[in-house]
This record gives sequence, C-alpha cells and structure tokens, in this order.
Amino acid sequence: MSLAFIAPQRNLSAWKTKIQQKLPQLPIFTYPDIPHPEEIKYVLSWYHPQGIFASYPNLQWISSLGAGVEHILEDTTLPESVLITRIAGKKLSTDMARYVTKAILNYQQRSIYLLANQQQQKWKEPTFQEPTIGLLGFGQMGKKVTEVLQALAYDIVAYSNSPKNIAGVQHFYGNAQLPDFLQRPDILVCLLPLTASTKNILNKDLFAQCKPGTYLINVARGKHLVEEDLLEAINSGQISGACLDVFCQEPLPKDHPFWRHPQITVIPHCASLTNVDEAVEQIVKNYQRIKKGETLANIVNTTKGY
Amino acid sequence: MSLAFIAPQRNLSAWKTKIQQKLPQLPIFTYPDIPHPEEIKYVLSWYHPQGIFASYPNLQWISSLGAGVEHILEDTTLPESVLITRIAGKKLSTDMARYVTKAILNYQQRSIYLLANQQQQKWKEPTFQEPTIGLLGFGQMGKKVTEVLQALAYDIVAYSNSPKNIAGVQHFYGNAQLPDFLQRPDILVCLLPLTASTKNILNKDLFAQCKPGTYLINVARGKHLVEEDLLEAINSGQISGACLDVFCQEPLPKDHPFWRHPQITVIPHCASLTNVDEAVEQIVKNYQRIKKGETLANIVNTTKGY
Repeated sequence: MSLAFIAPQRNLSAWKTKIQQKLPQLPIFTYPDIPHPEEIKYVLSWYHPQGIFASYPNLQWISSLGAGVEHILEDTTLPESVLITRIAGKKLSTDMARYVTKAILNYQQRSIYLLANQQQQKWKEPTFQEPTIGLLGFGQMGKKVTEVLQALAYDIVAYSNSPKNIAGVQHFYGNAQLPDFLQRPDILVCLLPLTASTKNILNKDLFAQCKPGTYLINVARGKHLVEEDLLEAINSGQISGACLDVFCQEPLPKDHPFWRHPQITVIPHCASLTNVDEAVEQIVKNYQRIKKGETLANIVNTTKGY
Repeated sequence: MSLAFIAPQRNLSAWKTKIQQKLPQLPIFTYPDIPHPEEIKYVLSWYHPQGIFASYPNLQWISSLGAGVEHILEDTTLPESVLITRIAGKKLSTDMARYVTKAILNYQQRSIYLLANQQQQKWKEPTFQEPTIGLLGFGQMGKKVTEVLQALAYDIVAYSNSPKNIAGVQHFYGNAQLPDFLQRPDILVCLLPLTASTKNILNKDLFAQCKPGTYLINVARGKHLVEEDLLEAINSGQISGACLDVFCQEPLPKDHPFWRHPQITVIPHCASLTNVDEAVEQIVKNYQRIKKGETLANIVNTTKGY
C-alpha cells in the first residue's frame, strides 16, 4: 500500500525527501504520476483537482499539508469513510502569535504616525489608548496569541462556535452571542477556520455591529473577507484600518485598491507558514498510528469543517 | 514634618492632587516655594537643581518620580544618610516589554521591507531569520521582556552585573564575560540603568565586539550611547540599524542625522512612561513605611547606582 502527494501547485521536493528518509519502506508517488491508483491508501493533499479522490478506491486517510482543510472539504465527491487530518504545529501557532502581536503593537503604539513624524523631523510624544482585543476564532492559535497578549497586559475577549474557558478571557460563543462579542473589541483579529458558515463573515453586516473605529487584522483566509465591504467600512470610518495577510486572490493583483490604501497594511501571506520538518514529523506519526490501528492526531470534524 | 516636590521641569498638578488625596494630613510644598526648609523630611525629585538637597537639614528620604535615579546620584553633594528609592512599577515593565517586542518583531519580520514592497505594489514573500536576542541589563524590565519573548519562542541571552538564574536564558555577568555575551546576539537590547560605569557603554569598542550586522534597540537612556559611534558602526555595516527611544539631547534636535537615517527608527522617548497612579501608590506606601520605621521598597544601592 502506497502514499501519494496530490498538490500540483506546491514544490514538494523537501517534503518527499524528508518523508522517504523517515519511512524508507513506503512507496511514495506524486500526482499525476500514479501508475496503480488502487494501491494508494494515504494522500497528502493541498488544493487537489476536485473529484480526484474517487480515483483511489482504497483511500483511507488524507492529510492536509497545512493547517487549513477547506480545499479538501469543499470537494463534494469526498468519500465519507476517509479520515482527514491537518497540521497543527507549535511553530504555526508561534508564527501566528508573532504576526498578530506585531500588528496589534504597531496599531496600538501608532507606528505609522511615529514614522510620519520622523520623516518630518517632528518630536511629538503620542498618546496611547488601551485597546480591547477581540479574537474571532479561538482554537490552538487563538490560545497562543492569548498567552502572549496577556503577558503584555492586553484586555482580551474571544468568540468561537462552542463554549470555552480560558482564565482572564471573556468568551462568547454561538451565533446568538456574536453581536454582543462584536460590541467589545477595539481591534478585531480573525483567526477562524474557513468553512461554509465562516466564508464572507467579515462583511458589511458584521462591520456595522462593531464599535465605530474598530481595527481589523485578518490572518485566516482571504475568503473570510468581502473585500469591497471592508473598503466601504474604512472609507466611512466604521472600521479605522486593517492589517491583512490573506486575500481572495493571491498574489494580490497589481491594480487592487488595497495596495495604495493609506489605512491598509498589505502583507504577502506570510503570517504563518507550514514548517516542513514539523509537518513531516506529524505526518509520519499519524502514518505509524494508522498502521497500528490507533486513533490519528488532529482529525478534522467534517461537519464542523475544522 | 513635610514633603517637597523638587522637579522644576515637570508638570506636577496630577501628582500633587493624588498624593494629597491619599495623605490629607501631610503638608506638601513645591520647590522653589519652600518657606521652612528645616521641616522637609521627604523629597520627590526629578532633575533637581544640583546641590539643593543640602538646604534641607532634616532630609531622610528622596524618591525619584520615575525608574531612573541617575539625576539624583550624580549630585556630589548628596547627604550620605538619605535613603533613595525609585519607582519600579508593573506598568513600567509592561510598557517596556511592549516597546521592545514591537521593535524586535518589526526587525525580525522585516516590516520596513514589506512596507516598501507595498508602496511598489510588489508581492514578494520575505524570508525570516531566527535571531538571538541579547538583553544588556537584566533587572525587573529585562525579566518581563524575557517572559514575552519566550512565549514568542525567541532565543534569549542576557548580561548583567551580577549572576542571575532565569530558566531558558543563558546569562553572562561581570566585565569579564561581556565580550562572550556580545558575540551572541543578533539583536542587542539596552535595558541598563545609567551609572558611572554604563555611561557611554554603547560605543565603538562595544560595537566592534558584536557580531557583524547586529541590530541595536536602546530603550534605557540616551547617555548610554555614543551617538557618533553608532552612526559610524551603521555606516560600516557592523551594526545593521537601530531603534532608539532615548537620546543625549531630547527633544532630538531638528538637524540631528538620526532623523533622516534610513536604518534608524527614532521614537520620541515614550517606550515606558511613569504611570502617575501606580507611582503615587508606591510613594504613599513608602511614606507609610518610613513613618512606622519599616524598610522601604525599591531602595537604590548608591554604590551600584540602581
């Protein structure tokens, strides 16, 4: 029984070398060069061609090559019996915490204002506000971000699908509590998984429920955000600005209005990149578990979508 | 017995109101309006006129209005018997940790490069290095900075006068270990107190002992740094750049070369400002202690200078 990579847009050479080193007996193939589809039991996937999984009748397990699995779950031909896992590394969470902390500190400590003053040789002590940070989405990454922001004495509120209990964080959950949550943050950080119910969640209706002047940080997925609604909300003053790492289309097209907007910081999708070594370690461990009939780590709930 | 403020450059109205509220029986005077100098037992001081303390024959205790005490200790007429204390607040340390973390994240995550790319509508994923952070000075602020940087998984080394033991931090101490310490950091953060032996410590000799390309963050005092030596070290490439919050002369003069240097970030001394409420609480508690004959908190060792 074999493993196949199905990730046509990715450079896979490091992945293949590292997995083969750790599992020298395992036959590894790369889509589209898969001579015996019936032998493929395990797939490592990233934005596969939709419908392709039906070609592998003995498929048992699909692992995403990253934290996101929306590219797997949106395939309506996905066989029900297949287990799906994702990468959930400490390094992914740390990188995300670094990025979010940087964006919050730069906004709260008025870096853009201070830089403009430096350019005019203007010495002017700024006044700083104490913002409430709202984490929209509160999984592993949200908890790491919370650890850092609490060490920096920021006030934190969080929202997720289901109830959670983290010391010092006021937590809201479920659709019914979303409006109350949105009234609290001065800085709103989107850390949601992309699912059918979170796609386009950052839209004009949501922005209208925020406190006027809320600042947005999106480090999740471009498709969480209705980009024209953000522009409208910033131009009306309802949203004071945004730091964005992800976009509907990446690379962001040259003529996209975000590039030149003075209140928008564009970062080229690098908040949190999968670390190949860390991911390979998780994949190899899950492979060993499935061989022994043990439960896999980081299994995705296909109903919830994460 | 009375208390006097001797801080001619400061706006003291909030300080006076808050202290009088908490100690309504205590007579409070403000230099130079001190009709009966012999009644002054306690002084709250910030950059006092040198030699002035000799005018108060019954002086027992001087509290700095901030974390620094160099302005008190440099007065050669300071009576030996007087107790000196400083403000050492949680908020001071948190503000410092926010500032240092921001400067480190912006350097490590290449914020200036990314901003320049945005201005040219250029989508280019940067590569990030994993820097070692070196804390030059490792008191209360250094420990708070360490807590945050460890949560963000940065490698930390520290240097101070005397041995200290903090989990996960390689610590160097004393003059003999300074050269070994300086070989380690990619980012050097000055958090030293200003004393006779740390004045001008950031000079060409020290820079020459750093790893080539070290980045400097100075949040301590302007007088730690020989400004022309920094310019030379940056222009030679030995130091890759600097983020400076403090300067020999503040406000930084309009024609100072730091303002327009592309590798220097100038911040107008706002990394960590004394919080009046927090400071007043500490001063009032120390006042109550001295009245009862108890030991004061945050006493300064006049030999060490901090």
